[in-house]
Amino acid sequence: MNLESYRGWVALNLVPGLGARLSGKLLRSFGSPEAVFAAPLTELEACRLPAAVARAIHSQKALEDAAKELDEFAKLGGTLVHWDEAAYPRLLRETFDPPPLLYVRGNAALLSRHTIAIVGTRRPTPYGNQMAERLARDLAAHGLVLVSGLARGIDSSAHKGALAAASGATIGVLGCGIDVVYPKENRKLFAQMIERGVIVTEFPLGTYPAPQNFPIRNRIIAGMSLGVVVVEGAQYSGSLITARLAMEFSHEVYGVPGLATEPRAFGPNQLIKQGAKLVTQFEDVIEELPTGIRAELGPVTAASPEERASLFEQTLSPSERVLYDLLSPSEARQIDDLVETSGLSSSEVLATLFELEMRGVVRQLPGKQFLKVLL
Amino acid sequence: MNLESYRGWVALNLVPGLGARLSGKLLRSFGSPEAVFAAPLTELEACRLPAAVARAIHSQKALEDAAKELDEFAKLGGTLVHWDEAAYPRLLRETFDPPPLLYVRGNAALLSRHTIAIVGTRRPTPYGNQMAERLARDLAAHGLVLVSGLARGIDSSAHKGALAAASGATIGVLGCGIDVVYPKENRKLFAQMIERGVIVTEFPLGTYPAPQNFPIRNRIIAGMSLGVVVVEGAQYSGSLITARLAMEFSHEVYGVPGLATEPRAFGPNQLIKQGAKLVTQFEDVIEELPTGIRAELGPVTAASPEERASLFEQTLSPSERVLYDLLSPSEARQIDDLVETSGLSSSEVLATLFELEMRGVVRQLPGKQFLKVLL
Repeated sequence: MNLESYRGWVALNLVPGLGARLSGKLLRSFGSPEAVFAAPLTELEACRLPAAVARAIHSQKALEDAAKELDEFAKLGGTLVHWDEAAYPRLLRETFDPPPLLYVRGNAALLSRHTIAIVGTRRPTPYGNQMAERLARDLAAHGLVLVSGLARGIDSSAHKGALAAASGATIGVLGCGIDVVYPKENRKLFAQMIERGVIVTEFPLGTYPAPQNFPIRNRIIAGMSLGVVVVEGAQYSGSLITARLAMEFSHEVYGVPGLATEPRAFGPNQLIKQGAKLVTQFEDVIEELPTGIRAELGPVTAASPEERASLFEQTLSPSERVLYDLLSPSEARQIDDLVETSGLSSSEVLATLFELEMRGVVRQLPGKQFLKVLL
Repeated sequence: MNLESYRGWVALNLVPGLGARLSGKLLRSFGSPEAVFAAPLTELEACRLPAAVARAIHSQKALEDAAKELDEFAKLGGTLVHWDEAAYPRLLRETFDPPPLLYVRGNAALLSRHTIAIVGTRRPTPYGNQMAERLARDLAAHGLVLVSGLARGIDSSAHKGALAAASGATIGVLGCGIDVVYPKENRKLFAQMIERGVIVTEFPLGTYPAPQNFPIRNRIIAGMSLGVVVVEGAQYSGSLITARLAMEFSHEVYGVPGLATEPRAFGPNQLIKQGAKLVTQFEDVIEELPTGIRAELGPVTAASPEERASLFEQTLSPSERVLYDLLSPSEARQIDDLVETSGLSSSEVLATLFELEMRGVVRQLPGKQFLKVLL
């Protein structure tokens, strides 16, 4: 790809104090980034820019910075997409204040596919994590590209779920530079996303993930997605901001229900009260999409979770069955508790749980606690 | 009360094969029960009754049976209400097929107050029980009369919650005769309902609680209530039937959300998908009621659950606080687990839990398991 042709776009993105709204205004007035940088100062000032910003553009220093930025970016092997290109997410382009330029690493073609976002708290319950993972996997298996923010918790579970589906595709939208791995523990997921999905950001290289970047990032998630599924989020959470943005854009909003007594279920429960669609399985998401898009996705023919569960349960040995039935997908149980309740010996419980863990249907948490994995 | 004046109504209710729909038709045609029994056989047959039913009416045997029924009923000290009386529930009167006669024990005046039903499974989760109890208590405290079916599980929790509110009032609708205590373990609750609330049924004395009676009973619950709150219920549960009847009557339907992974949450989650209002606190119920009724109920000024919880939490000692925070209202924890997690000695854990149980904020389940009680 000829990165040099994006120099004006990158430069516009590097002008201090010039956000997406003002760059957009300039692009609409002058037609191209090159025309913006070639404009006389008086014409720039006539656009009601802050004086310092007008002078910064007119100095053309950003064009020099852009050359360095492009050299750096070339080393990462990424691509750039501006809003006049077909690869730019169509729904995002139609929102108020779309970012004129996106930095992209991975498969940029995913950006123009049909997408659904799954977002939620960084500190989910086991139920929240598993719902995010299961919904993401099932939606990805049905041809939707899964969008999230690559944060801890629900976001990570959603990306992992999508990657777990055969040919599942996923988009990670960052609140930092595309060369910044944040949070650090997501290094492996980050690499997988570049390999099998795509990561995208409007922030220049090296941008630190400052708290104020996340609402800006959330508008891209909400803007590019047909709908946003909120899995868990407390009363004043970023997920609720993303959902409200989706509502403003007239995109769908979905909530995964939770216990009225769980503070992290406040967000989705509240959204459902306000009219968001309640989601317990991926079909609930697809049902709300426009007919044309549903037709493109093809028929929803996968076995239902109940069917898959019962097929699987037929393969269990009696002791596996006892332990599997004792476990819950939402609340971990301690091994001692399982020994006591199951009536099995502790060595038998250990061996059986190990077997079930190997089959991927039980998950061990710290402190010898065990969870059922949703099928 | 002059029970004798109800003899014709009781007799009509005792005619074999004559349900609420046909009795209603006869009453509309002839004007009164007495006129029905005085009618020539040809006129009865002209109403398209089954021939055996017409002959049974014309034989006047039911009037003799009614005399015995009234003697029996007089011993119980109950009252009767027919559908032309002011004490008859107004909303029920407006439904299709209301029962022409109700047997009543307790405070019949409650039947003409504003009512909300809470219904759900007979085998709820601890979360379901506590939500039913808490919502019932809060709604009753705000002047609504709580209707349910006096069954095990959610129904019982709802009645108990209503009775726990100062001057809380509740109506139990039976699927059997008003002299039949079912289920047996509800004997104490049954007595409390007669003392402080009211129980009501359309079934003659001694009627056994046959399964086919419950859908009939459910139509009274749905018919007399401004709205029906479903707390927990599986896919093919009676609670869903009650909710669907409420929809047919254009009464409100509410659902308490639950985990997508919990089969007993299927009912309310499904209803919410179909447009029922999601309820996490009593205000959600009251908000949907017509303005005039809300005005009669007066302002909703009670402390919110959060406020109550935080006021209460200020009174906890450090070790009480540690244990209280470890407990959940939805999943019981074993005492050994609490000792291990809290870092407190087992005698300290025992003493503290005992203290919290005495204060009514912790509940002990069999097997030394403990739950947080919702405040």
